[in-house]
Amino acid sequence: MIDKIYTAAVLIIGNEILSGRTLDKNTQYIGETLNKAGVRLMEVRIVPDIESMVVHAVNRLRTQYDYLFTTGGIGPTHDDITAQCIANAFEVPLIRHPEAYEILLGYYGKEDLTDARLKMAMTPEGAKLIPNPVSGAPGFQTDNVFTMAGVPKIMQGMLDHVVHTLKGGAPVLSETVEVRAQESEIADALSDVQDAYPDIDIGSYPQYSSDGPRVAIVLRGTDRNNLDNAVKDVKTIKVPKSSGLG
Amino acid sequence: MIDKIYTAAVLIIGNEILSGRTLDKNTQYIGETLNKAGVRLMEVRIVPDIESMVVHAVNRLRTQYDYLFTTGGIGPTHDDITAQCIANAFEVPLIRHPEAYEILLGYYGKEDLTDARLKMAMTPEGAKLIPNPVSGAPGFQTDNVFTMAGVPKIMQGMLDHVVHTLKGGAPVLSETVEVRAQESEIADALSDVQDAYPDIDIGSYPQYSSDGPRVAIVLRGTDRNNLDNAVKDVKTIKVPKSSGLG
Repeated sequence: MIDKIYTAAVLIIGNEILSGRTLDKNTQYIGETLNKAGVRLMEVRIVPDIESMVVHAVNRLRTQYDYLFTTGGIGPTHDDITAQCIANAFEVPLIRHPEAYEILLGYYGKEDLTDARLKMAMTPEGAKLIPNPVSGAPGFQTDNVFTMAGVPKIMQGMLDHVVHTLKGGAPVLSETVEVRAQESEIADALSDVQDAYPDIDIGSYPQYSSDGPRVAIVLRGTDRNNLDNAVKDVKTIKVPKSSGLG
Repeated sequence: MIDKIYTAAVLIIGNEILSGRTLDKNTQYIGETLNKAGVRLMEVRIVPDIESMVVHAVNRLRTQYDYLFTTGGIGPTHDDITAQCIANAFEVPLIRHPEAYEILLGYYGKEDLTDARLKMAMTPEGAKLIPNPVSGAPGFQTDNVFTMAGVPKIMQGMLDHVVHTLKGGAPVLSETVEVRAQESEIADALSDVQDAYPDIDIGSYPQYSSDGPRVAIVLRGTDRNNLDNAVKDVKTIKVPKSSGLG
């Protein structure tokens, strides 16, 4: 019997990542967190704040993978279009979510609950809120799509809140073996190990440091025994006298 | 007359980004570099080392945008499948590129030019090489697709080498105005400025620092006068007495 592999995608909505202004750190956190939950992050897309592009990507990714996590575009300003896009993708109306309204009312008070702030109470009909541990405005879950803030600290709190509700498989275990060598010197031997362990995903990442070339060999799999055996085999790879080249 | 807007996509091939092991820094560098060249980065996709996914993404992105830049997967190991994927996407054979062979021969010497290293001389038929300023193995250009290394230092050298060959429009100019306020306090006024300047892309990015909330308002456009006027208008936005909330 082959266990089901649970998969996920991330959709990052934000011109600031594409322009290079902001370095995306959310992918790394989501990838690591999902690993532990036994869910494989299979694809990430970054798109600008353009409705047609967001809607298209949401519909592709939510049907192709078990879960979709979106980040960005749920604030109060004109460039925050994610809630409307998710509603359009699901073909449901965008409504004022009663609980979200209560949260914002409690946070800002009646007098300061301006129209701009009320925008953050709008969700696709049927959505379930995801609490915001930093500021007032919540994220929300629509079927298998989790819509989260773009600010890393808020996004992390939201993800941590929902990750326990995900159905996942066995956690992906990872081991790294560092070898002082050029990648090309160990490529054949590494390929043999990969062939011997088809269930282990073996990646090879060259690094160029001042004290010579190194390779980080990363082994990933769900079976501890199998992983340990593959690690042992990688550690027996003989490195030829180094030529100092890449 | 509306000037053509030149567009680009990035395809990042690498399990190490999706697993969270490695933080992707290439998107930021490519986004910034393309801005200066008058090319808009419109979409980024990150996919694992799975041939069908890479080929599908290459064919979508190369036809949808003027340029496609791929990073990762062009080394000598078993998980380096990018060259084969690009060849498959273009439906051309993967061949030993004569110039790439000469480069590797010069770099390693005949005796050390092993089969694994020779893999790095393989390109799609018709590809043009992109020099590698760090180690021997070159990248390559296939039509409008630029295939580059994943190691940031090498990728940057390859991009810097080809960016001058790109056809672009006017460079995208960017100005940032920092405001001590909550995003929701200036949302309406900001929306008015956006309406007044449809050719300027205005983004609003909240920051939570220890000395209170701030918003970075980023204005981007190709016309210097227009941009400066929009910046002036943003600077006249009155911030109400701060409530200290988000």
